[in-house]
Amino acid sequence: MASKNLFLLAGDGIGPEAMAEVKKLIKAMNDKLGSGFATDEGLVGGCAYDAHGVAISEADMAKAVAADAVLFGAVGGPKWDKVPYEVRPEAGLLRLRKDMELFANLRPAICYPALAASSSLKQDVVEGLDILIVRELTGGVYFGEPKQIIDLGNGQKRGIDTQVYDTFEIERISGVAFELARTRRNHVTSMEKRNVMKSGVLWNEVVSQTHKARYSDVKLDHMLADAGGMQLVRWPKQFDVIVTDNLFGDMLSDIAAMLTGSIGMLPSASLGAPDVKTKKRKALYEPVHGSAPDIAGKGIANPIAMIASFAMCLRYSFGMVAEADKLEGAIAAVLDDGLRTKDISSPGMTEVGTTEMGDAIIAKF
Amino acid sequence: MASKNLFLLAGDGIGPEAMAEVKKLIKAMNDKLGSGFATDEGLVGGCAYDAHGVAISEADMAKAVAADAVLFGAVGGPKWDKVPYEVRPEAGLLRLRKDMELFANLRPAICYPALAASSSLKQDVVEGLDILIVRELTGGVYFGEPKQIIDLGNGQKRGIDTQVYDTFEIERISGVAFELARTRRNHVTSMEKRNVMKSGVLWNEVVSQTHKARYSDVKLDHMLADAGGMQLVRWPKQFDVIVTDNLFGDMLSDIAAMLTGSIGMLPSASLGAPDVKTKKRKALYEPVHGSAPDIAGKGIANPIAMIASFAMCLRYSFGMVAEADKLEGAIAAVLDDGLRTKDISSPGMTEVGTTEMGDAIIAKF
Ligand SMILES: CC(C)[C@H](C(=O)O)[C@@H](O)C(=O)O
Ligand SMILES: CC(C)[C@H](C(=O)O)[C@@H](O)C(=O)O
Repeated sequence: MASKNLFLLAGDGIGPEAMAEVKKLIKAMNDKLGSGFATDEGLVGGCAYDAHGVAISEADMAKAVAADAVLFGAVGGPKWDKVPYEVRPEAGLLRLRKDMELFANLRPAICYPALAASSSLKQDVVEGLDILIVRELTGGVYFGEPKQIIDLGNGQKRGIDTQVYDTFEIERISGVAFELARTRRNHVTSMEKRNVMKSGVLWNEVVSQTHKARYSDVKLDHMLADAGGMQLVRWPKQFDVIVTDNLFGDMLSDIAAMLTGSIGMLPSASLGAPDVKTKKRKALYEPVHGSAPDIAGKGIANPIAMIASFAMCLRYSFGMVAEADKLEGAIAAVLDDGLRTKDISSPGMTEVGTTEMGDAIIAKF
Repeated sequence: MASKNLFLLAGDGIGPEAMAEVKKLIKAMNDKLGSGFATDEGLVGGCAYDAHGVAISEADMAKAVAADAVLFGAVGGPKWDKVPYEVRPEAGLLRLRKDMELFANLRPAICYPALAASSSLKQDVVEGLDILIVRELTGGVYFGEPKQIIDLGNGQKRGIDTQVYDTFEIERISGVAFELARTRRNHVTSMEKRNVMKSGVLWNEVVSQTHKARYSDVKLDHMLADAGGMQLVRWPKQFDVIVTDNLFGDMLSDIAAMLTGSIGMLPSASLGAPDVKTKKRKALYEPVHGSAPDIAGKGIANPIAMIASFAMCLRYSFGMVAEADKLEGAIAAVLDDGLRTKDISSPGMTEVGTTEMGDAIIAKF
């Protein structure tokens, strides 16, 4: 049997609480279904800084790279707002993405029927929404050099970041988007700012070439990223798969997530390239929400995004499609039953805490 | 009497139709109120390319720099999608911004009561919305060097853009934001990605310093730009003035505009620094909407954003505050009367064309 080594990095804030529910789920799957998951745990973010003075230790990095999949909670909080840039909590996440070469970030924005009314958008605008943002994750302005602050003297400093994309990077991320579109509604919208950025010109060109060469059966549109943001707010259902760069993907996926009225519920998968021999891809799964320090430790965090991230893990890392479907079904069923954590609560619903929500989902699974 | 030289650059698409309504208005103000505006006209964007092979001619650039204010329509359209990058329609606008040193872009996002129902957001989320985005307009990734595509051989290219901000640039734009906040609800939210970008670290630092040194009476918050985008969609009324860089400002102001349900109605002002002697600032006023080539020439474009941009021109370039108030009041009154162009039409309203809308506003003025 293929190995199923999971490395858990719960991180800071509500990360550990959300992860605790996934740990219960994994145990239940091992006990009842003999799923055979082996787990190990490490530190990332502020808690790693407190323990080791870095955002992730070398030992934990090595375990992450060696694991079949990494489950990631969330990092950061006011406690670490003043730590040096190089060891700030986010540096742990960025290093994981870079060193594991997780270039493809998949962020579904799904509007659960039970929650359509809780969006700030009109119900008909978001009801039934199911779009997938494919964000490039190891390039662009996140990692380009030079990236520095220069002291110019006379009280003047200069802050510099560099946006860089090479052909192969755009080719491989658009390939992922086209492949996924084929399993969905066969439509990709590529977003950049080619009217202002040279990297946008190249992005547009390479996506078009990749489309022509290998995916001409998929419908392809190009949109400027600012117009794309507007269209997401105006009528998000016009989209199926959106492919975009690291920084635009950061902005656009957060906006898409907010549309659904359920930012506490959305998972993401970050994938590397398939290994030439084993076909396995390195992978990290994390909720779209952050560490929410204001509600950490209160037992009220919504564990659904973390559990749904584990469902993506079952699907993409272990080919356990039936189990993933079942787990996503269990989440929907619990919502249909009226169970709500505080963040998604509304009159007439049953408000529950983190553990009750986790238990209810496991019971339905 | 101070000079009132207006230079009109109507541009492409619906630009000329919208500008025609402002021209009628200027004529009416000259004829009836003796306002004394002198106007001249030039070409920018695709039409300038067709006439001169560049996005704006040197002669027109000189006129723009010399004018007391520039009124700008919109540029671009499918006809010019394939022209070389250096002379693409947008290059004309970017050159105007850079050569006129229009570093401060003011983009109000106001939800007209008569239109609150036409937003894709719930009415209570946007009703009464009145926020102001102050976007840095002459720096950042729009103008930083290197900005190029390099041929790496083997079919590989590299696209590079550079985000650069100096202390003085951040200082002056945040000064504008704080000054404007004092005339409003006294609250500034600064947005960047300091967790990923060094320019964001510097941005955050300089905004805080400027606040401490000169504007500590104003409430200041910092927000990561991705979280800011989410918060704009979730509950936009939490904001008063948002100050952000060129690229984030591009994205965030478009999203803010779309929230109001009236992208065809929103104006913007781009201002330079006050001249040391005359105190006059160079200025360009333009609608937030684009050239909308699909509806150009049909007489159905909404001229309100262009007219509202002229209202901002009255206010900021000529100190004609009473006239600006009156013009904005005329726009609101016409909407209250139920007049709607096609883009904002809804059942029970009176649908009118571009000229009828312009005439109705002038009649109320
Ligand atoms: C935490 C931060 C570095 C990260 C990013 O900017 O990518 C986050 O916003 C995300 O979207 O995963
Ligand atoms: C036309 C384009 C160059 C411009 C920009 O990106 O600034 C536009 O989107 C805007 O916001 O004014």
